[in-house]
Amino acid sequence: MTSPAHAADGDLARLSLNTATTKALTLAEAVDAAVRAGLPAVGLWRDRVQEAGLERAARLVADAGLRVSSLCRGGFLTAADDAGIAAALEDNRRAVVEAATLGTRELVFVVGGLPASPGAGLPASPHPGGAAADPARDVAATRRRVADRIADLVPFAQEHGVRLVLEALHPMFAADRAVISTLGQALDLAEPFPAETVGVVVDTYHVWWDPDLERQIARAGAEGRIAGYQVCDFLLPLADDALLSRGYMGDGFVDFATITRWVGQAGYTGDVEVEIFNQAIWDQPGDDVVATVAERYRRHVLPFL
Amino acid sequence: MTSPAHAADGDLARLSLNTATTKALTLAEAVDAAVRAGLPAVGLWRDRVQEAGLERAARLVADAGLRVSSLCRGGFLTAADDAGIAAALEDNRRAVVEAATLGTRELVFVVGGLPASPGAGLPASPHPGGAAADPARDVAATRRRVADRIADLVPFAQEHGVRLVLEALHPMFAADRAVISTLGQALDLAEPFPAETVGVVVDTYHVWWDPDLERQIARAGAEGRIAGYQVCDFLLPLADDALLSRGYMGDGFVDFATITRWVGQAGYTGDVEVEIFNQAIWDQPGDDVVATVAERYRRHVLPFL
Repeated sequence: MTSPAHAADGDLARLSLNTATTKALTLAEAVDAAVRAGLPAVGLWRDRVQEAGLERAARLVADAGLRVSSLCRGGFLTAADDAGIAAALEDNRRAVVEAATLGTRELVFVVGGLPASPGAGLPASPHPGGAAADPARDVAATRRRVADRIADLVPFAQEHGVRLVLEALHPMFAADRAVISTLGQALDLAEPFPAETVGVVVDTYHVWWDPDLERQIARAGAEGRIAGYQVCDFLLPLADDALLSRGYMGDGFVDFATITRWVGQAGYTGDVEVEIFNQAIWDQPGDDVVATVAERYRRHVLPFL
Repeated sequence: MTSPAHAADGDLARLSLNTATTKALTLAEAVDAAVRAGLPAVGLWRDRVQEAGLERAARLVADAGLRVSSLCRGGFLTAADDAGIAAALEDNRRAVVEAATLGTRELVFVVGGLPASPGAGLPASPHPGGAAADPARDVAATRRRVADRIADLVPFAQEHGVRLVLEALHPMFAADRAVISTLGQALDLAEPFPAETVGVVVDTYHVWWDPDLERQIARAGAEGRIAGYQVCDFLLPLADDALLSRGYMGDGFVDFATITRWVGQAGYTGDVEVEIFNQAIWDQPGDDVVATVAERYRRHVLPFL
């Protein structure tokens, strides 16, 4: 029962449902749920898009009158071997094409962890000792490879009018998911490139704790690099899988009033994506989840935008 | 079977056993284990000291010929109410006296989390919405209170020849244990005070991921504020209690060669404490733990000091 976009609620004019929040839904179901709740936009994940088929996904979202606020996600750029590098570049070029086809400029990048991390395909080898650092744990070298891969991808992204959006992940994911841990570091990596081609996303879950956050959000705004604002709360105790410790705004420790004001003052006028990974929320009916998302957005985010 | 300090091993001349690593042992047992393994120093925890009695603990360690590299821990300074503030100041003055009595200058501070955190005694109240930020989640205000309490305690610490050692904790503990999340932030807080009275500790578990770490370690050295170097590894997956995800050096993701070189280049010549919270290690016999600590120290830390 996709309904036309004119049903959208004025209060929700910048609210985007990141489809990871309704993980159990197909793309079509998530789009319907967003429309029913009066949301004007969705943030998409590549797995759900591929499942639906790229062209069909693009039509489905466009026919529903929704904007695509971002595509999640490219990245995983930290491989050190030629085959790994080639595979990463190929996959990210595909992601660029997908973003362009879906009609979004913003392709979110989770850049990947250390070579020693379980996900990287290399065993966590014992430290060799002796005089040299262990390459599998060399975080500085890993970050340099990320910078090199971004440089490799920029021309292709430019051709397609897509922006590579660097996401700082919470430092508890530095070993296994992203060696970019702060917004400032993401901006340093973006600096050599035009703001239209390399940007950053502010995700409250990952950056709320950062003592330098106010300054770096202002810097991101001044540089024209804020490509997205993702909101969700930080819950304790951490879930068994720490990725899933995200919660509805208001249920955890994030000061949304303050951070949202900083983002607004930095000049960001784009969509606000709610992106929650949380098993209990995934187990709720999709319409209930979207209704709660909208209610919490009105209460904790909208007044401060 | 306490044996004289001349049994100490030259390689281990800077290795200190933080007694949290051998949590099941009494203070006397931990001291014996350190001496048997040829270690010249111990880092003490207040609970084990109080259990033994302060004067007796001081004698016990001195008679064994051991240095006390630090006392853990003071802090928990984030209370906003008068009674909470008074209680924190009183407890920390007691900790200063304990440190002086035990013959260590270095009193490690874990500064405490947000008022909304479970440990703070206030319920995690729902965000009030409206125009104001929620004080229970206001991390900037919480940090200002930490600065105020440090200023309150500095004269007393100076009188007793004790240094307040600010510890940056991993950002995953920012909500519930320490609103100091980076070494740079700890140094900013220390800046108004003499280096002899407010210092910092570098704990690899908490700071290894920080893109600014090299620069901040150099700054800490230049300012004369490195009061301790604590080593242990960062393990994944995180333990149910993330505090316990610490491991023996070499078992996780920390690049000890690089960080240890930075600490050495910064001019630090003091003790290196091994401080591991890990249930599996706590379940091992104390002598085995200390032997493994010494072996891993020789392999992963000593060559780079």
